[in-house]
Amino acid sequence: MSRYFSQKYASLVPYTPGEQPKDMRYIKLNTNESPFPPSPMAQSLARQAAGDLNLYSDPECRELVALAAQKLGVQPDQILFTNGSDEILNFAFMAYCDQEHPAVFPDITYGFYPVFAKINNVPYVQLPLGEDFSIRIEDYIGLNKTVFIANPNAPTGIALPLADIERIVAGNPDGIVVIDEAYVDFGAQSAVSLISKYDNLLVTQTFSKSRSMAGARLGFGVGNAKLIQDLNTVKYSTNPYNINRMTMAAGIGALADEAYFQKNCRAIMETRAWTMDMLRQRGFTAPESMTNFVFAKHPGVDGKTLYQKLRQKGILVRHFDAPKLTDYNRITIGSQEQMQAFISAVDEILEETL
Amino acid sequence: MSRYFSQKYASLVPYTPGEQPKDMRYIKLNTNESPFPPSPMAQSLARQAAGDLNLYSDPECRELVALAAQKLGVQPDQILFTNGSDEILNFAFMAYCDQEHPAVFPDITYGFYPVFAKINNVPYVQLPLGEDFSIRIEDYIGLNKTVFIANPNAPTGIALPLADIERIVAGNPDGIVVIDEAYVDFGAQSAVSLISKYDNLLVTQTFSKSRSMAGARLGFGVGNAKLIQDLNTVKYSTNPYNINRMTMAAGIGALADEAYFQKNCRAIMETRAWTMDMLRQRGFTAPESMTNFVFAKHPGVDGKTLYQKLRQKGILVRHFDAPKLTDYNRITIGSQEQMQAFISAVDEILEETL
Repeated sequence: MSRYFSQKYASLVPYTPGEQPKDMRYIKLNTNESPFPPSPMAQSLARQAAGDLNLYSDPECRELVALAAQKLGVQPDQILFTNGSDEILNFAFMAYCDQEHPAVFPDITYGFYPVFAKINNVPYVQLPLGEDFSIRIEDYIGLNKTVFIANPNAPTGIALPLADIERIVAGNPDGIVVIDEAYVDFGAQSAVSLISKYDNLLVTQTFSKSRSMAGARLGFGVGNAKLIQDLNTVKYSTNPYNINRMTMAAGIGALADEAYFQKNCRAIMETRAWTMDMLRQRGFTAPESMTNFVFAKHPGVDGKTLYQKLRQKGILVRHFDAPKLTDYNRITIGSQEQMQAFISAVDEILEETL
Repeated sequence: MSRYFSQKYASLVPYTPGEQPKDMRYIKLNTNESPFPPSPMAQSLARQAAGDLNLYSDPECRELVALAAQKLGVQPDQILFTNGSDEILNFAFMAYCDQEHPAVFPDITYGFYPVFAKINNVPYVQLPLGEDFSIRIEDYIGLNKTVFIANPNAPTGIALPLADIERIVAGNPDGIVVIDEAYVDFGAQSAVSLISKYDNLLVTQTFSKSRSMAGARLGFGVGNAKLIQDLNTVKYSTNPYNINRMTMAAGIGALADEAYFQKNCRAIMETRAWTMDMLRQRGFTAPESMTNFVFAKHPGVDGKTLYQKLRQKGILVRHFDAPKLTDYNRITIGSQEQMQAFISAVDEILEETL
């Protein structure tokens, strides 16, 4: 830290992304990436856009917004695209949280929420999950705070049904409720259908997981037009050209190629069911997952040991060194071949250890 | 604005980017884009990267940073890449400005500085330029504030010599001085050589203009390692994967293709000299420009009228509706053919008007 760094950030501890080691070739099951390449249509449109990079991208992303609006059944003025969904989440913290409107979210959820709160100097409350990692709906009613719920939640993988999400939204008419649907496409129910009914609901999604575009950085928010206007005010006050031409083009291709998207989501869900079976057969327990990862623990091997032994065998999973999470590992669902390699490695480790 | 929008932003007026109309095909001389496509190497590497978008980009941008460090003659830990240079400028406002450290910049400069100050709730002071649009160095000594200087300045195009920049940096040992070099490659002197001598200097640059990559969104900051560490803390607290894979690859290609870069910068400077000659022959006055634009006025046609008449003829330039600027237009230097079309249109307008 330099002696010039603003005192307001003196105690800031930034978010730590999943490791991206370069020392050897790993099977990467640690950052919830898709094992499938982006849609051929997405690739082709992105490549075409590379020739026009001398011209600024459209700050309004009109073509992408129009297509997304059509696919989601909303109006174009109800969508805002951002540089990954981290950007729209940060915009929501900026626009809807302040000293009078603290943020509230579960104690176990996306690890970036407390970081967003701190960088924006916003107070926040972390509500404990139930013993089974469930979100207790009644804790989230009548808070008069800005609520952030990842649905499905991370790293647990557990999804709330739409009716529960609606109870939370309806139960906080004086506060914004942000539903972070980064993983919604793997079997959970989206709250997008509620945005015209509730003026306090912002739904965020990403192209990183189900659309195979983590490396393109594309996310978006959906909400009533006034919320989107607020968030646009923030965008045009920080980075009006936040989406580059190639990513915008890839996004259009990814949305257009509905069949490819559906096929990949189905493949992940099938491989998830197979992986869950294999893990349970070996004594692991894991909450039912509606995401592209499973969150599993074994009574005979502690979480950190399993993580380290898998790493030695060239398989990366994500281990969180926090009290309630340390028994577990978050394992991304890769291709069927990758998961077979993972299960074989698990078998070797269990044999060595038990 | 929604009723939920934080009061702290109630009076926020966002930055207005240059218009990008779609109603007809214009000769665009209004947003300082390059008339040349990006380097073939940049295009080719970007296209290759489109196949790997399912994987996150490297948050540390190691390969790009290593090449840039080599080209600039600095260490890798002295560089940070961002999603356009707007992002590094915003990071600098976040990291180095607060109630005790107001921002200070000229009253006529990049219009985004006051917006960055407002979105970050930072007080700011605007120091008037001289009558001839010059920055008065003595006004910037011993301020104990965070100084932002665009060099060359926009929209005037005027550059300060390196010795004057050094006086400002040396004259503010207790405050950060940010030198925004968006336009430095068109004939001005960069302050990058000073970063190892002064721990309070941050230099920012962009690939948008001289590297033909406005649509790719790539900028960076150069400063001593502790400043870069501060700015990384901000980055990892807002958007760790701020640069996508395709832009990162294009940046590597653009840096590698030194000959293409030099050739394009020379072409712009030659066309600028020709354009300036033509304008002066027709009675325009304009400060000497070290950028890819000229800032010109004519005694017989007011700025707004000229802007509107050019627009009717299919040529876009940028007019600023502010008291000291309203006589002028900022005209991007395009290709020689575009500037010939521009001068012909000017001739027609002068004939009609005078």
